[in-house]
Amino acid sequence: MIVVKVGGGEGIDVAGVLEDVADLHQAGRRVVLLHGGSHETNEVATALGHPPKFITSPSGRTSRYTDRRTLDIFAMVYRGRINSHIVETLQARGVNAIGLSGADGRLLEGRRKATVRSVEGEKVKLLRDDHTGTIDRVNDALLRMLLDAGYLPVLTPPAISEDGVLINVDGDRAAGAVATALGAEALVILSNVPGLLRDVNDPASLVTVVDAHDPDAVTPYAQGRMRAKIDGAIRAVQGGVRQVVLASANAVRPVHAALAGAGTIVRQGDLTPTEEAHA
Amino acid sequence: MIVVKVGGGEGIDVAGVLEDVADLHQAGRRVVLLHGGSHETNEVATALGHPPKFITSPSGRTSRYTDRRTLDIFAMVYRGRINSHIVETLQARGVNAIGLSGADGRLLEGRRKATVRSVEGEKVKLLRDDHTGTIDRVNDALLRMLLDAGYLPVLTPPAISEDGVLINVDGDRAAGAVATALGAEALVILSNVPGLLRDVNDPASLVTVVDAHDPDAVTPYAQGRMRAKIDGAIRAVQGGVRQVVLASANAVRPVHAALAGAGTIVRQGDLTPTEEAHA
Repeated sequence: MIVVKVGGGEGIDVAGVLEDVADLHQAGRRVVLLHGGSHETNEVATALGHPPKFITSPSGRTSRYTDRRTLDIFAMVYRGRINSHIVETLQARGVNAIGLSGADGRLLEGRRKATVRSVEGEKVKLLRDDHTGTIDRVNDALLRMLLDAGYLPVLTPPAISEDGVLINVDGDRAAGAVATALGAEALVILSNVPGLLRDVNDPASLVTVVDAHDPDAVTPYAQGRMRAKIDGAIRAVQGGVRQVVLASANAVRPVHAALAGAGTIVRQGDLTPTEEAHA
Repeated sequence: MIVVKVGGGEGIDVAGVLEDVADLHQAGRRVVLLHGGSHETNEVATALGHPPKFITSPSGRTSRYTDRRTLDIFAMVYRGRINSHIVETLQARGVNAIGLSGADGRLLEGRRKATVRSVEGEKVKLLRDDHTGTIDRVNDALLRMLLDAGYLPVLTPPAISEDGVLINVDGDRAAGAVATALGAEALVILSNVPGLLRDVNDPASLVTVVDAHDPDAVTPYAQGRMRAKIDGAIRAVQGGVRQVVLASANAVRPVHAALAGAGTIVRQGDLTPTEEAHA
């Protein structure tokens, strides 16, 4: 069982990822795919006259401010456009893909944060109409039923709260939760960077190994979106996923390359990266 | 087993439909819901600067001209916005709904029409980039698996062609195909009119019974969207669905009212409407 997450940042081409995912599925591996969609969501939101707004928490984390209208646009793009395209592409390759949001069958159930704090200049404002949250439960029984029947699940935010309200959740953390719930052997998190970089402008500054026991060691480099990827990866490692890799979606054969060790490996224990790649 | 279709025309409020559907599900009935979304799609398409275009075939049928960009907007609204809202509303009522387009698991597989003829003034033009089609197969095994596991499937166009291209299909005909494939006892098709009217401006001109053997008898009144509803209904009747009703989505308890016989009943045989309602 392999869980693959492909991001939705600017400049990501999912074609290679989908080719690899189709190959793995057709070779008999059980694969679950999750995807993002932030860049296209920003474009559509702007075109619809409701441009994206980001908020910074007092602890310095940046996140999308998701009022109800933003949530609707978010669901339109992630669920309606990107998920449909991925399902279509996989179907055209002969893979019986099935798209699901976290709301479908309560696949990703979580808690909405009732209020969010936003730093605005010198002040901290309390926002009450934000629709973001964190995942508490994964309906792995539904995923297993679909996998047993030969389908390839293609998952996307939003998730749903216990009382039935859509919530925007982080896709990388969702991937970590799904990989853990399924007891996956591997989690591959692909984006528009080759992994965790010490210097975001220098691909040669790749951090090859992150110790899940000591995530603070990489905090100076892991900011913003990368923080969520590291958090999702650590959640998976702590949940028992043996092989967790952050890598580039745009590499040649990106999933195969990541599974062969290209990228940033997140793990606990003291195997060398080479041993890990061949384990 | 009951299949309920609720349209997406202007002025339709789905709240009552969802309440009834939730009640039926919670009373232990197996329910499949299909929905439309034409009005919201027109609004979003216009807001995105790609307003809807309709074409009229030489035989006089009007349909949405679905170029690739329209198809993308169509998928965004039907799949991303309306389907998500319906799933969310049902989840908030404690129903474990699961949204699926016709592409997911090849739920609705069909044929894309390679070319479409459009009457423009005195001329008939051949359009080659239309993405519409008709349904040949329903993946009823997937629906049965989900129903057996206690989920309520919420289905929406688009469908998918055999070679894996999204196609815009008519929702009412899709409902007829699904009801037939599932061997449903009843199909209820709800829209912003109380059924087939002899005079669209006069609700009192309701046609209470349509004989599926003689659909031509109602051709003078059944034009445009209503033609598709009659066709979907006849497909279901011919496929063995015993009770097929066209009714108003905005009535009090609309699904219960339709199942009790309010609306236009489509059937074969010569039971009276009263006998049919109590059969």
